[in-house]
Amino acid sequence: MKIRVGYELIYDFPQPTPMIMVLGVHFTRASDVITPDHLTTTPSVPVTPYRDGFGNWCSRIVAPAGRMQLMADGLVRDSGRPDITALSAKQHNVEDLPADTLVYLLGSRYCETDQLSGAAWKLFEKTKPGWERVQAICDFVHDHITFGYEHARSTMTAFDVFNAGKGVCRDFAHLAIAFCRCMNIPARYCTGYLGDIGVPPPNAPMDFAGWFEAYLDGRWYTFDPRNNVPRIGRVLIAQGRDAADVPITLTFGPNTLVSFKVWTDEAL
Amino acid sequence: MKIRVGYELIYDFPQPTPMIMVLGVHFTRASDVITPDHLTTTPSVPVTPYRDGFGNWCSRIVAPAGRMQLMADGLVRDSGRPDITALSAKQHNVEDLPADTLVYLLGSRYCETDQLSGAAWKLFEKTKPGWERVQAICDFVHDHITFGYEHARSTMTAFDVFNAGKGVCRDFAHLAIAFCRCMNIPARYCTGYLGDIGVPPPNAPMDFAGWFEAYLDGRWYTFDPRNNVPRIGRVLIAQGRDAADVPITLTFGPNTLVSFKVWTDEAL
Amino acid sequence: MKIRVGYELIYDFPQPTPMIMVLGVHFTRASDVITPDHLTTTPSVPVTPYRDGFGNWCSRIVAPAGRMQLMADGLVRDSGRPDITALSAKQHNVEDLPADTLVYLLGSRYCETDQLSGAAWKLFEKTKPGWERVQAICDFVHDHITFGYEHARSTMTAFDVFNAGKGVCRDFAHLAIAFCRCMNIPARYCTGYLGDIGVPPPNAPMDFAGWFEAYLDGRWYTFDPRNNVPRIGRVLIAQGRDAADVPITLTFGPNTLVSFKVWTDEAL
Amino acid sequence: MKIRVGYELIYDFPQPTPMIMVLGVHFTRASDVITPDHLTTTPSVPVTPYRDGFGNWCSRIVAPAGRMQLMADGLVRDSGRPDITALSAKQHNVEDLPADTLVYLLGSRYCETDQLSGAAWKLFEKTKPGWERVQAICDFVHDHITFGYEHARSTMTAFDVFNAGKGVCRDFAHLAIAFCRCMNIPARYCTGYLGDIGVPPPNAPMDFAGWFEAYLDGRWYTFDPRNNVPRIGRVLIAQGRDAADVPITLTFGPNTLVSFKVWTDEAL
Repeated sequence: MKIRVGYELIYDFPQPTPMIMVLGVHFTRASDVITPDHLTTTPSVPVTPYRDGFGNWCSRIVAPAGRMQLMADGLVRDSGRPDITALSAKQHNVEDLPADTLVYLLGSRYCETDQLSGAAWKLFEKTKPGWERVQAICDFVHDHITFGYEHARSTMTAFDVFNAGKGVCRDFAHLAIAFCRCMNIPARYCTGYLGDIGVPPPNAPMDFAGWFEAYLDGRWYTFDPRNNVPRIGRVLIAQGRDAADVPITLTFGPNTLVSFKVWTDEAL
Repeated sequence: MKIRVGYELIYDFPQPTPMIMVLGVHFTRASDVITPDHLTTTPSVPVTPYRDGFGNWCSRIVAPAGRMQLMADGLVRDSGRPDITALSAKQHNVEDLPADTLVYLLGSRYCETDQLSGAAWKLFEKTKPGWERVQAICDFVHDHITFGYEHARSTMTAFDVFNAGKGVCRDFAHLAIAFCRCMNIPARYCTGYLGDIGVPPPNAPMDFAGWFEAYLDGRWYTFDPRNNVPRIGRVLIAQGRDAADVPITLTFGPNTLVSFKVWTDEAL
Repeated sequence: MKIRVGYELIYDFPQPTPMIMVLGVHFTRASDVITPDHLTTTPSVPVTPYRDGFGNWCSRIVAPAGRMQLMADGLVRDSGRPDITALSAKQHNVEDLPADTLVYLLGSRYCETDQLSGAAWKLFEKTKPGWERVQAICDFVHDHITFGYEHARSTMTAFDVFNAGKGVCRDFAHLAIAFCRCMNIPARYCTGYLGDIGVPPPNAPMDFAGWFEAYLDGRWYTFDPRNNVPRIGRVLIAQGRDAADVPITLTFGPNTLVSFKVWTDEAL
Repeated sequence: MKIRVGYELIYDFPQPTPMIMVLGVHFTRASDVITPDHLTTTPSVPVTPYRDGFGNWCSRIVAPAGRMQLMADGLVRDSGRPDITALSAKQHNVEDLPADTLVYLLGSRYCETDQLSGAAWKLFEKTKPGWERVQAICDFVHDHITFGYEHARSTMTAFDVFNAGKGVCRDFAHLAIAFCRCMNIPARYCTGYLGDIGVPPPNAPMDFAGWFEAYLDGRWYTFDPRNNVPRIGRVLIAQGRDAADVPITLTFGPNTLVSFKVWTDEAL
């Protein structure tokens, strides 16, 4: 299966403004890239790449005053297989976790493990450790939170969303991540493309998607509490502790987002 | 000058409990260690070290059920010189910052840059970029926040402390860090020992101290908005984005902290 | 200005042969791409991209036995401005260099800093640190080395070229890089397209060009000791420590290069 | 088994001199550390850590004019098991190698694959691909090269050592690495501690050891052409393409090495 992925973001800047972008297909998917989704800017400005502490390739630019379009359009090969289900995946004891997974047990900007620990244990202590527990967390989050783009708020944390009961896909992910960590399961945030392949219409307008991975039985498994069914055609962009680590874009100065389009469709 | 540093933490655990500890003089101060502050546990259990993504050496144990004492006592050489003041240290433009400092511009668990950006610009936009701006931030935090151990709360964030107007040293640091990041100055959290050398009594009971570093003019400088005067005898333990990255201890299970002592005194 | 860039490489392979290719306009120039220079192979075989440790997008194929043509033809926008001259760009002290530039001070396959350090200090110690020193290095290399395609040899190192006094553009670059590193100036190799825009005829047949960048005053500047004048129309393909890191092509098995054409011309 | 590891290096510097050090037990062995081998400097100077592109933790200092001692002394747990032998480990086809191993097929400072390719194929084409081939390379190198500290020369490459027929452990490793790469087997250089545990006296004075790893059958295996028998008690310090990537120390200025001691002994 081939998936066309891309975006067009248009900004107005009153003055020259530095930006960071965490965009572009993740290097672990590089071998699936048919046409690269290289970032283009209009007007054309120098792009400086760098690699963050999680291994994500990021980009820096200085946007000049005026209108700026960021765009990419790529073609990616995909297995066409849905997310893996591994019902028997075991939970590690904390003392057996690899050292480099421990950071994914700590609290982070949008995942206040300290605030949610009580609720997590109350809700999930009786569940069977491992896959079932993570699935129970996803089920709870899926059922407890009402989806709606009108609830999107950049400052919304897992604790906020738990209390408000509504949010967008990244909020679902943040709450489930926080719960997993509270239950001593390493969990990390993923941002990427996720289309409606195999999903009956009507389909919402596209956006970048947020899901998460939990570390069970020696590897990372994909979970998506927003959709809560195995999906086809995820294309990873970046991974981090939560959305604060992998901002799609981050602008260091005032600006207006004029237009925002994302696409991810099966290419025939 | 020689400084005696150490701690004794006593816990009661109802069941075997994994723990992470970010304790011990930072490896960059190894040259100054006269007597190492090795962690000892009573009862004796295996201590497994690991290195986190910031380079800090951390430790893991599984505490058995019952009472557990964690202790260390070391002797460290110190220059005896106060924190450096560099009034002419310039602020970098964002586009000129080294890539590995950019993570210290992002929001983190206790430093909600998104929540505080408006206040930061209102308060500090008129200040001169660079050292003066960071100092203005420290002055504001020092004056705005009332210190008091009774205000300590593990979930308290920079935004909380800004609103509450009271906190402990780590809260002072978190608020100043958040403001620095809002003003596009990379800032990172430091945990360590800081005694009352040169400070007239009465002195409070010792605790681990929290301060921060700001990246100006090509290097990291120490700032301490809690004390807000150059101090003598800081002994670094760990660095991270905020206190969530460098927990003194983190216990994965219920427990009671029975006793908590920290010392850091000039040794004659 | 628009520049047409491309190549046609024809090989004969006696048996199926894996190949690595570091070809294609660098992703940081994606905004300038009007018509992408997609690699096409005849016969058509799967092309698998990957990303190397420097961020360059590379490609892998398995060439079948027989004749194989690799081709690309693209159109790229260019500022039409010559390479930047920054006479006042300062040299950093080694202790002030960003950590990610330090690797560009080390010796590498074609840049034996250990062999050339004595000569470098003798030749350039009296020059003014910074831009002037790098320019002095370029001037020396430009004057000391006789250009000639007949001198091209894939095993030729900076030390070889220093002794032989002749080479091709990549040899010029390697020697200048080695000298810069000996003088504690980070320097990295660049491969790309460079046409004869603004250069009076007669012009040599086109080839991929090699130049370098030196890290001065907080950024990377372009230097080209082969031509040693600011040029118009460089189109970067890849960056690395030296040419060993960014081989145009690398074949894992015997083969005959039947034909080799490169073009880079102003498009009207 | 416990191994005491450490070193004492003493330098005289005529002027303040920046240094890079790649010393200290590798982070992948952190969990085996009983007493950390933290670097100490006398006189005490600030130590700045950074992480290189291979993940090794490195250190930077500025040594003041005069005498400088670098020292460490640590205790490390070890399995006590000899290097793994996996006679059936298969060689990957180049097209099946993971992308991040490809860099270890390229030439590097001390491993001139281009110069040695002819010899490699002549010598090893008839050997069975996989473990046997790497072992045949090690056997050849072990037999062909005469060991002797008097042959140590910092500029000596694999091609030099092949021609000279003598060298030290890093030269053995470089030649075997170059041959492996010529035969399309990814190979990387390792530096670390290796004592004489289980080796009958007389034993040579200790030094840091150089060995290498070859990528076979989906993982990296240890090979040591200098000793060419499975050994007990290796303690890895750093990995890279060759010794140029992982200099024990690198000084940016003139200096005299006054004393050099390394120890690695079984601790009882």
